[in-house]
Amino acid sequence: MSHKIGHLYGLGIGPGDPELLTLKALRILKSVSVIAYPISERQQSLARTIVEPYLTGNQIEVPILLPFKLAESSQPYYDEAADKIAAHLHQGKDVVVLCEGDPFFFGTFMYLYTRLVDTFPTTVVPGVSSVMASASALGVPLTYRNDIFMVLSAILPADSLASRLAVADAAVIIKLGKHFRKVCGVLQQLGLMERAKFIERAAMPNQKVIPIGEVNPDKVPYFSLIVIPSHLMSI
Amino acid sequence: MSHKIGHLYGLGIGPGDPELLTLKALRILKSVSVIAYPISERQQSLARTIVEPYLTGNQIEVPILLPFKLAESSQPYYDEAADKIAAHLHQGKDVVVLCEGDPFFFGTFMYLYTRLVDTFPTTVVPGVSSVMASASALGVPLTYRNDIFMVLSAILPADSLASRLAVADAAVIIKLGKHFRKVCGVLQQLGLMERAKFIERAAMPNQKVIPIGEVNPDKVPYFSLIVIPSHLMSI
Repeated sequence: MSHKIGHLYGLGIGPGDPELLTLKALRILKSVSVIAYPISERQQSLARTIVEPYLTGNQIEVPILLPFKLAESSQPYYDEAADKIAAHLHQGKDVVVLCEGDPFFFGTFMYLYTRLVDTFPTTVVPGVSSVMASASALGVPLTYRNDIFMVLSAILPADSLASRLAVADAAVIIKLGKHFRKVCGVLQQLGLMERAKFIERAAMPNQKVIPIGEVNPDKVPYFSLIVIPSHLMSI
Repeated sequence: MSHKIGHLYGLGIGPGDPELLTLKALRILKSVSVIAYPISERQQSLARTIVEPYLTGNQIEVPILLPFKLAESSQPYYDEAADKIAAHLHQGKDVVVLCEGDPFFFGTFMYLYTRLVDTFPTTVVPGVSSVMASASALGVPLTYRNDIFMVLSAILPADSLASRLAVADAAVIIKLGKHFRKVCGVLQQLGLMERAKFIERAAMPNQKVIPIGEVNPDKVPYFSLIVIPSHLMSI
């Protein structure tokens, strides 16, 4: 027996609000027979929750257990996940991998992509990033004209953060979690606290905007970020 | 006579492909009675072209003439555009302003937003940025894990570009146009030409991917960019 191999889709599903899926993502989501998504060790999948309103009920679901922290030891997890997906593709089934935000922007899809792209026809559908969704939710214009814009991970050492922020016009600091205190120290040092805005879980049902001075540093979730909007005067 | 004032929407409509509108943007677009969009001096509107398949034909259209280059002298244009939009809002009509990509990310919507947000209820709907759409179209994962990511405008002086790129893990250089030669000089100096990918009009019908060494520097459009993907090895 011979048949066509399936098509792999890395599907950007946006930052959390099911309405922030693109029309393209929705069309493809409904057209495939297999849907893969990352799950935590507690078997939860934020990505699946986002698209739940659109699932047909007739699709094969492939939960992918991924370690929360990436390290060399993560390799077997990705190998196994890629094998699972490849098995469906070899049977001629099209497979969607759900990606929160955008598939190629600080995600985990790339680790599957690099394993599968040489063997299977692959399409990546870009999505709305939480970086943009946060600025919209906060009501702060992010970048003007020729601003120098940066996205920095809160996990970076204070001096790395400080040296970059010092030469940026606007920035977003992602993955705050337990690094909130350190980041605020850097912002204070650079005189950026006045401009900085804090948001938790942008575009998710439990989104929260808190004045940065009132944030409890011990209760900052991983999915929270600080937006430092441009200081440019508007015309 | 008294009535409710209208609601203002800054609507991210994505980078060019009409299917890259979000479900939310489409719902709001269809619900309003007034649609405003920037036009060039030649009366063309890329934003209107993107949403054309979805227009009902019964909506009032408000073309906004904006100067291509922003300067102090642009202020009267934005004042006039804001007045036009305000007139509809005062009549109780909801108004959408179409924004290519994301409304708060290197756009022109902010100049209307700051003029209107204190008077009218306003919602900003984030959109897919051409930055993310370009990486997807090129098939290059943009950022991994804790990468330092930057978006830089090609108009910046060579030394500004070089000093930032030297401390970035991944970057996108936007608005290339006539600055292509200068940008390539910087990339050569930093040893980044090998990694750099060029794309014109990402996600638009006339999208073009050209190997960076084969680009004609005299024919680079404004809507083209260079992606320097992360150099991180995948796990």
